[in-house]
Amino acid sequence: MTKAFGAVTEHTPLVALDIERREPGAHDVAIDIAYCGVCHSDLHQARGEWAGTLYPCVPGHEIVGRVSAVGSEVTAFKVGDTVGVGCMVDSCQHCSACDEGLEQYCDDGFIGTYNGATADAPGHTQGGYSQAIVVNDKFVLKVSHPAEQLAAVAPLLCAGITTWSPLRHWKVGPGQKVGVVGIGGLGHMGVKLAHALGAHVVAFTTSDSKREAALALGADEVVVSRNPDEMNAHANSFDFILNTVAASHDLDAFTALLKRDGTMTLVGVPEHPHPSPNVGALIFRRRTIAGSLIGGIAETQEMLDFCAEKGIVADIELIDIHDINEAFDRMQRSDVKYRFVIDNATLNA
Amino acid sequence: MTKAFGAVTEHTPLVALDIERREPGAHDVAIDIAYCGVCHSDLHQARGEWAGTLYPCVPGHEIVGRVSAVGSEVTAFKVGDTVGVGCMVDSCQHCSACDEGLEQYCDDGFIGTYNGATADAPGHTQGGYSQAIVVNDKFVLKVSHPAEQLAAVAPLLCAGITTWSPLRHWKVGPGQKVGVVGIGGLGHMGVKLAHALGAHVVAFTTSDSKREAALALGADEVVVSRNPDEMNAHANSFDFILNTVAASHDLDAFTALLKRDGTMTLVGVPEHPHPSPNVGALIFRRRTIAGSLIGGIAETQEMLDFCAEKGIVADIELIDIHDINEAFDRMQRSDVKYRFVIDNATLNA
Repeated sequence: MTKAFGAVTEHTPLVALDIERREPGAHDVAIDIAYCGVCHSDLHQARGEWAGTLYPCVPGHEIVGRVSAVGSEVTAFKVGDTVGVGCMVDSCQHCSACDEGLEQYCDDGFIGTYNGATADAPGHTQGGYSQAIVVNDKFVLKVSHPAEQLAAVAPLLCAGITTWSPLRHWKVGPGQKVGVVGIGGLGHMGVKLAHALGAHVVAFTTSDSKREAALALGADEVVVSRNPDEMNAHANSFDFILNTVAASHDLDAFTALLKRDGTMTLVGVPEHPHPSPNVGALIFRRRTIAGSLIGGIAETQEMLDFCAEKGIVADIELIDIHDINEAFDRMQRSDVKYRFVIDNATLNA
Repeated sequence: MTKAFGAVTEHTPLVALDIERREPGAHDVAIDIAYCGVCHSDLHQARGEWAGTLYPCVPGHEIVGRVSAVGSEVTAFKVGDTVGVGCMVDSCQHCSACDEGLEQYCDDGFIGTYNGATADAPGHTQGGYSQAIVVNDKFVLKVSHPAEQLAAVAPLLCAGITTWSPLRHWKVGPGQKVGVVGIGGLGHMGVKLAHALGAHVVAFTTSDSKREAALALGADEVVVSRNPDEMNAHANSFDFILNTVAASHDLDAFTALLKRDGTMTLVGVPEHPHPSPNVGALIFRRRTIAGSLIGGIAETQEMLDFCAEKGIVADIELIDIHDINEAFDRMQRSDVKYRFVIDNATLNA
């Protein structure tokens, strides 16, 4: 039995559970989980705010740990390696998306680290709020950060790759002016990564009080988006804007800041639709609004290696698993800088 | 004096007017207008449906004619040449957009062929519903189609380039599946051009009765967009969709048909906003919604040359200028296949 924390119904808080993990197959890697980041998706899924939550629901898809066993066919990992697991634990592995290393867009749908289809008990995958996990080796990442950074590495597996993938896909780099909207779990990684990629980074926040914090993350400038004068000063000037805000908001305020041929990429699905974007703002400067979903395994490894080389990790608050329900409530109020990470050793207590 | 037809107020029909054209300056080309296409924009502008119409308003920006005089510095054109003028008659000519041949995105705003700023009387530009026009040589296009096709060439100057520019910018060509939404003035050119560029073209129409006509234009397939089964059969299959429908409509029905990394480009500004597009549909396949505005002078010339080589013209109904008000009403009812073109010789009557 593996100790875990999960929701038994959508209306009840997360509680201690015992779950089963499969014996590692020939291509499997068994991992003792050291840390697991707490993502907004975890809350939405556990509380049934997204359709189709399967209970018991053990969330968690920002996993860092150590390999405890490997299957007979596994060559890339050995016992004792430090590894990570992100939002996916499987995919069809033969469609064009999988062939291109973009498993997140798998034609059959990727298998999520939790709430995904599996032959394992109880019939759906269970995530990283647990002592251990067993994962197909193709979905295991190497982590080369030093040991003392591992807790802060965990959020790279979702928040990091979700911002890295669009920054890379839309070729963000030196000489470009890049905006990051929303300085939370995702956005704070977007600022760090865009800065490390050499762009001139402007952080957009709704609150003047976050100005210093955003500069400390690596933003070259901070704009309070509620201030029209500050916004107008940046009209038509951005090559790329990464919009991490899932709450319904006025997209036009940001598209107006894009240069001709600029792109704003959304990475959050709003519960209620955004006001319909102004089509004229797109047409008159050939601007683009796009979406992007997490990232593929190859680019996740690329991001982890880049972050290890540059010394980049998330800014986190480490918590005891027994404080997870309070952490959910605080996360919902954006009262965290910028990511909670569970110390999975506290599951033993 | 130059005979013209225009609106004197937003509430009155177009009437015969006498207007003045400037004497050609050193860089000007004077053109006797043979034909002028009738664009929806003409109607919106003349009837004051767009803010800022200046009266008297002489519409028309799909102009074909013959050079009657050239300024001393003009080398590219000579008297007797067949030429065209589209939506623009000037721009700043020194911003980055102009430098790249994308005058439609001029930082200062291009000067429209009508309702644009000018030193000429009456202080705003007047368009092609007139006997003659004088235009800076940089905004004059060479037309190499045979004489008998010239009336049908006129719509290429707006409807043609408005569809050509996005097809080229998003690199439509052989091996691609391309949709064209709305088979009217713009859409019928989109079908012809995408077909000529080698794509597999699917025409989307709301009416089963337009099926044969769309096939005749060069569509490989026709989909009636009101039929969900027909639509679903094309899910996730398009590389590119050119959406020419300006009326408010459900964009999601079409974004759902895009492949991963597919783009839908809008070329019409709706009077009332489209329903807000589903962000999840963008995120889960990294799809894009973009806008595109007419096209630059260099690409307009490229399009005209391509069409001359391939024998492509618009499908038109030639009208007497005295029937222009009826033509406006019929255009508003989509009762035209697919573009009215004025025989400007009828201005002499």
